[in-house]
Amino acid sequence: MTKLKNDLFLRACKRKKIERTPIWIMRQAGRYLPEYRAVRKKSDFLTMCKTPELAAEVTIQPIDIIGTDAAIIFSDILIVPEAMGMHLEMHEGKGPIFHHPIRNENDAKDLKIFDPTKELKYVLDAVSLTKKELNSRVPLIGFSGSPWTLLTYMVEGKGSKSFSEIKRLIYNNPKLAHNLLEKLSSIIAIYLSAKIEAGADAVQIFDTWGGILSPNDFEEFSLYYISKIISEIKRKDEPVIVFAKGVHYKTKKLSKCGADVIGLDWTMSLKNVRDEIGKDVALQGNLDPTVLYGPKSKIKDEVINTLKSFGEGSGHIFNLGHGILPDIDPEKAKYLVSCVKEESKKFH
Amino acid sequence: MTKLKNDLFLRACKRKKIERTPIWIMRQAGRYLPEYRAVRKKSDFLTMCKTPELAAEVTIQPIDIIGTDAAIIFSDILIVPEAMGMHLEMHEGKGPIFHHPIRNENDAKDLKIFDPTKELKYVLDAVSLTKKELNSRVPLIGFSGSPWTLLTYMVEGKGSKSFSEIKRLIYNNPKLAHNLLEKLSSIIAIYLSAKIEAGADAVQIFDTWGGILSPNDFEEFSLYYISKIISEIKRKDEPVIVFAKGVHYKTKKLSKCGADVIGLDWTMSLKNVRDEIGKDVALQGNLDPTVLYGPKSKIKDEVINTLKSFGEGSGHIFNLGHGILPDIDPEKAKYLVSCVKEESKKFH
Repeated sequence: MTKLKNDLFLRACKRKKIERTPIWIMRQAGRYLPEYRAVRKKSDFLTMCKTPELAAEVTIQPIDIIGTDAAIIFSDILIVPEAMGMHLEMHEGKGPIFHHPIRNENDAKDLKIFDPTKELKYVLDAVSLTKKELNSRVPLIGFSGSPWTLLTYMVEGKGSKSFSEIKRLIYNNPKLAHNLLEKLSSIIAIYLSAKIEAGADAVQIFDTWGGILSPNDFEEFSLYYISKIISEIKRKDEPVIVFAKGVHYKTKKLSKCGADVIGLDWTMSLKNVRDEIGKDVALQGNLDPTVLYGPKSKIKDEVINTLKSFGEGSGHIFNLGHGILPDIDPEKAKYLVSCVKEESKKFH
Repeated sequence: MTKLKNDLFLRACKRKKIERTPIWIMRQAGRYLPEYRAVRKKSDFLTMCKTPELAAEVTIQPIDIIGTDAAIIFSDILIVPEAMGMHLEMHEGKGPIFHHPIRNENDAKDLKIFDPTKELKYVLDAVSLTKKELNSRVPLIGFSGSPWTLLTYMVEGKGSKSFSEIKRLIYNNPKLAHNLLEKLSSIIAIYLSAKIEAGADAVQIFDTWGGILSPNDFEEFSLYYISKIISEIKRKDEPVIVFAKGVHYKTKKLSKCGADVIGLDWTMSLKNVRDEIGKDVALQGNLDPTVLYGPKSKIKDEVINTLKSFGEGSGHIFNLGHGILPDIDPEKAKYLVSCVKEESKKFH
């Protein structure tokens, strides 16, 4: 393997000395970029996920255009339930839909336990191809949804405000919920190991819906499985990042789950979390994504506030506190990246 | 004024000695009750708000049917922007819509600064009538949205996931945002004072959208105005409750805003918050509303966990961590109330 030209991201994940704070942006390969929309125009979302050339192309776009310090493979967390046999429809703006959600044992009985190295080979091919095309410029991140987040989508079937269906399931049939979470965990551990094998330099687990759970339920239905997966991932030195949106109430326990990095949403304070959990893990985040609607002066102020909140030293990967919104001006994203690169020097 | 037969709620708000923990439920006068739906069938939502007899009828229903220890006047937070001249449409299931949202000075220039004692007299009449019909059985709570939450609806115009429009406004035109928040604050302070004057025994300020803000923005755009209102409300001994959903990051500051009671959502720990903020304010909450989808055994377990989390002594008002969901079985709500009444005795 060739040495990376820019390994700031990986060094920050391991809390090693760095010259400035690295930055990447959740959903950086996405709709806010006209170059992405040009590819998307010719091909539907799932086809893009399943065509390594297209996935590689949009994965590399933000590296070229806005200059982030890491690439994240273009894909979607819901290809896992799709590979289990669920019919997935992606609606731009409306979100994903499973027309036959899982509500009971009968719905669940046809779910396939599959081998990600075969059924999701297209992702692994996309990873290998992207690695090659990135030509060692920056590290490549692979990812998966957490078991809890995937199960939430599988049970709700579509967007929800109250998450009634998944809550009904865990309160009335916790056995089935645990059974499915167990199966998802095994698949995800193999899947993330395979991504690393294919060339991913780091992996991130997205627990988008962890925060809808009460603290005890989060430990039982989400954190337990995240920890299990991390202990099973086959890796050398590749860092694992866990981003659990809205999980403000279990930061300390989250920091003990085996991850190298914890991602924080914008309602958290990097300072408070760093004070609370100590220096065992690095932190990623956490600028309010809507700050990019503001003028450059506001962006700069908030970049400085975010850097100050973490404070001096390594162990901070700059990111938004959630995915970049589709109507953000790419110029603002570019400005954010350059601003972090410049301003963060003073903190190292 | 006649003495209340059951004043447990008021005593708990003031952290005075009580024999058991009082309970009321956010949205207890609502769609989960067949008796409510029967009234709603004959009349649209806003007409119900504007007809004191109907508002009183549905306000009293949960006292008769499920036995809560306080009534909350049936109304809606959005009648305030409506009285400012915004055309409001209520869509069952879809949420409220303002077809002409406020985005700039021009949109804002026609907003009326109105006198709530005149323009919202129907609410005050509903309060007086309900008080009379309640016949001193339990206290009556009046409420308002917080300035921030009302402004969010006024600017977004409809439901939102990313709250892009209100965030654009505060980052690009904070002057206009503050100007509107200031006006809303003055109106709300008069409005809540008038409700107390009309007979409300307590008032609650709902900051439903406080939690979409980063910690500093919350202080600047929401908490400041909540504190201002509380300092301006004309009251004798009537408690003020503030429920700021998702605001886990400013509990200490929130506890200093002048409110007697802080409402917590279900992601918070009553114990941790009580430990953090001390005994200056009472706490309200915070059972996960979806626990009512579970079997009675689960509801009982979680009632006990919630009571244990607060611990012994006065200063806890039992409630859900958010409004009761429309598809909850009323039997479950009834069970919840009786369970809290029974189990809480051991904590006093």
